[in-house]
Amino acid sequence: MNPTACILVIGNEILSGRTQDVNVQYIARRLTEIGISLREVRIIPDIRPVIVSVVTEARAAYDHVFTTGGIGPTHDDITSSCVAEAFGVPWVPHPETFALLEKHFAPGEFNAARQRMATLPQGATPIRNPVSIAPGFTMGNVHVMAGVPRIMRAMFEEIAPTLRHGTPVTSRSWHAFGLYEGALAAKLENIQHAHPDIDIGSYPFHDRDGHGGVALVCKGLDADEVTQVADKIAAMIREMGFTPLAGEPAHKA
Amino acid sequence: MNPTACILVIGNEILSGRTQDVNVQYIARRLTEIGISLREVRIIPDIRPVIVSVVTEARAAYDHVFTTGGIGPTHDDITSSCVAEAFGVPWVPHPETFALLEKHFAPGEFNAARQRMATLPQGATPIRNPVSIAPGFTMGNVHVMAGVPRIMRAMFEEIAPTLRHGTPVTSRSWHAFGLYEGALAAKLENIQHAHPDIDIGSYPFHDRDGHGGVALVCKGLDADEVTQVADKIAAMIREMGFTPLAGEPAHKA
Repeated sequence: MNPTACILVIGNEILSGRTQDVNVQYIARRLTEIGISLREVRIIPDIRPVIVSVVTEARAAYDHVFTTGGIGPTHDDITSSCVAEAFGVPWVPHPETFALLEKHFAPGEFNAARQRMATLPQGATPIRNPVSIAPGFTMGNVHVMAGVPRIMRAMFEEIAPTLRHGTPVTSRSWHAFGLYEGALAAKLENIQHAHPDIDIGSYPFHDRDGHGGVALVCKGLDADEVTQVADKIAAMIREMGFTPLAGEPAHKA
Repeated sequence: MNPTACILVIGNEILSGRTQDVNVQYIARRLTEIGISLREVRIIPDIRPVIVSVVTEARAAYDHVFTTGGIGPTHDDITSSCVAEAFGVPWVPHPETFALLEKHFAPGEFNAARQRMATLPQGATPIRNPVSIAPGFTMGNVHVMAGVPRIMRAMFEEIAPTLRHGTPVTSRSWHAFGLYEGALAAKLENIQHAHPDIDIGSYPFHDRDGHGGVALVCKGLDADEVTQVADKIAAMIREMGFTPLAGEPAHKA
């Protein structure tokens, strides 16, 4: 079985609707590619007891926990000290990170707020930040990353090679214009029942010209079985008098 | 205190990275506008025991639970029957919805799969769907909506006037180019400590030309206090030798 994962998005700015999260989709895609099964995402506020309790639950329930957000220098950046609390370890200056940041800032600019970014849970391993220097960190099975998307992506790619990879998911999809979910549901369910290990998803779409149809996606760890299922789906679409087009429609919403 | 809410995004397509969720930001903004406090978002897979247990937890913890996704006619659309299970009630044909859909489809096309969309937890109230007819529903404090964004938005707007509204959140923001979080953190923290009921957020940004700075957002239920805090933040920015620009930067990421 593939390792499991959970993402914790930490930040009031997502819950207020100020900011559109884009990190979840990036991490989700990359985990699918490297064979780690993303089981849950939780978006939670910058409130200490909430972060501590959700990190504690998640690290017990999943092989990997990825957090985004809350690791800058300001008062609302509390993820790092909350992770220390969740692990029951002190939150202490990390000497190498301290030296790295001290060198990065002009003399006199490495103030108390910036020194917080060199303060990590005792025993944490920094995650290199090639964009803006201040690192993320891994503590146990919890990987703490920035919320700014380009920094988060750089941090994720730093740690991705170090994670235990499972079997990558194989995915095949078809779409058909003019075919609707309600018409194919029974036939599709028969295919799903014959292949319980393959995850078959059905998604209606409308393109920008108002033409609609359905996209059918099959995913699984056994590439041969995914191909078999994809062939059955294409045959089903043809039998219903429609044309199966490979892949996803250009406009998915 | 304002009523609280949680959003449950139900769907493998979000967890696999296939689909970028855009419903959370819409609902989050609208709840902020009408004075309902969004406390948490959970994105969970199309797995029956997971949905049942998360709905059960969430409906006990929050005043309102909004779900998106999983109410179509295909085998992976299990939200409705899971909500019935979470409430311990039977999942039964809803006569008015049955009649509505029967009338909508051409003779012979209202098949078993489509009849599932007229099957609701016993005691549920349908939420009108002006886009594609098949309704969502409210069961207790759980509002079950479609995953397709334009249908979800229409359903949300159907129920928004019926929800108990709290005090709308007042928000004021400033941004400044060339000013960085690490430089203002201590001063900002002093303002935050003086106004614990106001939520002050600090968000670095870079515009498309590579110019960066910080956006400072203050929110709260007391509009006068929000104005006071915003004035203090503007004064702080000026004292540091930078120019406070009203509102958010054009490009936020």
